[in-house]
Amino acid sequence: MALVVQKYGGSSVADASCIKRVAQRIVATKKAGNDVVVVVSAMGDTTDELLDLAQQVSPLPPGRELDMLLTAGERISMALLAMAIANLGHEARSFTGSQAGVITDSTHGKARIIDVTPGRLREAVDLGHIAIVAGFQGVSQNTKDITTLGRGGSDTTAVALAAALEADVCEIYTDVDGVFTADPRVVPAARKIDRISYEEMMEMAACGSKILHLRCVEYARRFDLPIHVRSSFSTKEGTWVVSDPDSEGTEMEQPIISGVAHDRSEAKITVVGVPDKVGEAATIFKTLADAEINIDMIVQNVSAAATGRTDISFTLPTSDGPTALSALKKVQDRIGFESLQFDDQIGKVSLIGAGMRSHPGVTATFFAALADAGVNIEMISTSEIRISVIVGQDEVDAAVSAAHRAFDLDADQVEAVVYGGTGR
Amino acid sequence: MALVVQKYGGSSVADASCIKRVAQRIVATKKAGNDVVVVVSAMGDTTDELLDLAQQVSPLPPGRELDMLLTAGERISMALLAMAIANLGHEARSFTGSQAGVITDSTHGKARIIDVTPGRLREAVDLGHIAIVAGFQGVSQNTKDITTLGRGGSDTTAVALAAALEADVCEIYTDVDGVFTADPRVVPAARKIDRISYEEMMEMAACGSKILHLRCVEYARRFDLPIHVRSSFSTKEGTWVVSDPDSEGTEMEQPIISGVAHDRSEAKITVVGVPDKVGEAATIFKTLADAEINIDMIVQNVSAAATGRTDISFTLPTSDGPTALSALKKVQDRIGFESLQFDDQIGKVSLIGAGMRSHPGVTATFFAALADAGVNIEMISTSEIRISVIVGQDEVDAAVSAAHRAFDLDADQVEAVVYGGTGR
Repeated sequence: MALVVQKYGGSSVADASCIKRVAQRIVATKKAGNDVVVVVSAMGDTTDELLDLAQQVSPLPPGRELDMLLTAGERISMALLAMAIANLGHEARSFTGSQAGVITDSTHGKARIIDVTPGRLREAVDLGHIAIVAGFQGVSQNTKDITTLGRGGSDTTAVALAAALEADVCEIYTDVDGVFTADPRVVPAARKIDRISYEEMMEMAACGSKILHLRCVEYARRFDLPIHVRSSFSTKEGTWVVSDPDSEGTEMEQPIISGVAHDRSEAKITVVGVPDKVGEAATIFKTLADAEINIDMIVQNVSAAATGRTDISFTLPTSDGPTALSALKKVQDRIGFESLQFDDQIGKVSLIGAGMRSHPGVTATFFAALADAGVNIEMISTSEIRISVIVGQDEVDAAVSAAHRAFDLDADQVEAVVYGGTGR
Repeated sequence: MALVVQKYGGSSVADASCIKRVAQRIVATKKAGNDVVVVVSAMGDTTDELLDLAQQVSPLPPGRELDMLLTAGERISMALLAMAIANLGHEARSFTGSQAGVITDSTHGKARIIDVTPGRLREAVDLGHIAIVAGFQGVSQNTKDITTLGRGGSDTTAVALAAALEADVCEIYTDVDGVFTADPRVVPAARKIDRISYEEMMEMAACGSKILHLRCVEYARRFDLPIHVRSSFSTKEGTWVVSDPDSEGTEMEQPIISGVAHDRSEAKITVVGVPDKVGEAATIFKTLADAEINIDMIVQNVSAAATGRTDISFTLPTSDGPTALSALKKVQDRIGFESLQFDDQIGKVSLIGAGMRSHPGVTATFFAALADAGVNIEMISTSEIRISVIVGQDEVDAAVSAAHRAFDLDADQVEAVVYGGTGR
């Protein structure tokens, strides 16, 4: 008998009929002889509706109270799901994050899980019950206040519980059939990936693939827990995220490139005319770090000998742009740079593949494909298994398609079906 | 410095603007130098909407899960209220029933409070914070499951917390100015009662007055906790429910009658042709008790000598009618009664007044008033401070008006203003 942890996102439980369908799926898993623990997000737009209510009473609601408010969303969906399962003749018990033993730090809105004590879940499962757990939420170790985990929180809850319960697999249900070689909305010929390594999946997540959050994949890797990303609208096998994707593969050689990710949510800031002195760059990035801004890529031009000045460009989440600009303006006199440029019309395109390690020609092929497609590269960054470029935002689609084709990722026919919206 | 517990019902927090208004009122109480603990119901129709969702996934949802679902309602309203208070520059902390220490038995849907351990509330108040508590909910002592308190639950939460915290007063905010001598919709000349005893208020509640639930008044009486029923839409003094309403009164004599209550929610069942033998009535009411049906009034006719049979009539909540009829049919052969009659076109009109004890003429005046109004009395029951009669449902208004006038309760001008709907 296997222990399966399943996670259903907001679009999978958007209304009563969706909830009944998910209940049938859960019962089928139980009937197949598995113990089942289910993690569920809030229904469809509930979170947005609650945030809207909060905005109506306070422009800047306290984090503690916002967490108290938002956690009502999962409370509703999990209770309804437990009822729907009971209506199919199976015992189900819903548990809040706190009841399920999800212990976090006290950082409201983006708490980190610091311990998992799933005693009540274990007890329920041992009694043959199906346990339904609220995703995205926990209880702080010190203050005993309700916390939320922030982005990717429900996926992370599922992986954390699966690890603590030593589950055989964590199934993440979504509205597509799995992880694709590129976003099917951009590349209709994108193919579903059957198996992918944690490392590649983490790079995909970091580079704009929204199907799994970086944090949840990191957690799974730490505990070597297999994740199965699959559609809640079909019974097809999805994508397995595992430590060694080739161990059970039938292919003789792993593909060089696993997928092409893209991200339109970043902007670029250029600090123009920075005096070319030791420590100036350090001051700039210390300033940004103090403002809690995450920098992605950085490029420093070669200093022009005549002026003794250089330009430093970096990318960051577009939403952090105003904060970053105002933080930098405050140190302009001290550093002595000339001006700031802000460009939110950029996009990042990334090639990801563990095979890259042993294939030195990848960069050349990628850049040639972009050149043939008439796409200009503004910035470049690489890791051992990834090459990312910054291009103009209106050239992202062309760049993704060109790269996908250049590495023979195109399928013979369209595979992807997108069924609905996205959850949290 | 006084400690004030305030309770706001669903209509007082129906939307964002209502919540902001309530927040101002709470802050004003705090600024006046009081410590404040607030108990809040779910917003407006939230509970009905959640019940509707439950019905969509399951015709008979398990009590544990229904409680989990419904408690999301107060979680939303209390977090929003705390945010609105924070936005006015005051510290507020919301607490679930469980966090507030409302310990109950495990009877889902109508749990009883068995202990109150308000340590976290005390701590918050000692820090100068305003504590906001979810009404209507608690946590079961044995299973640690979330429970709801059933009808009157939020009022009872407020009174229970006020008692445990040794508050100076429990203010119950509602959409009318207080307790009236009769329902102002029936008797426009009804007057607001300034002070009333626990006993009279309990009789009023038991006889159909919906402003306070019997259970909450019982609780307050046990701890001798003053309740102040007042409008959340005005700053006028409302009605004080206390042990000795005349101690501070300016009137030389207490009124004979405090108020006239009515109730249209009962029905009458007549068991026709019961053999006049010892134990038959006992069997009938044992049968009803086993079916968990609460009987109100009972009348047994004098046995007709010729037949040796009698009729037994009793009243019960109309909603319990089908259950009662089917339970009785099952024992028809054993008891040997002839038939059952069901009449849901009845109403109960009750005169309540502690002064009745020393004024023997009340019944005569009451019955004369009803006779003058052409109202036929079907059943009668009395307590030390109450006289109730069953009349035809379409005669209830006339009976209430006639009684109100006969005991000089009519005000010189209309006092009552009804501001909105009702909460739970």
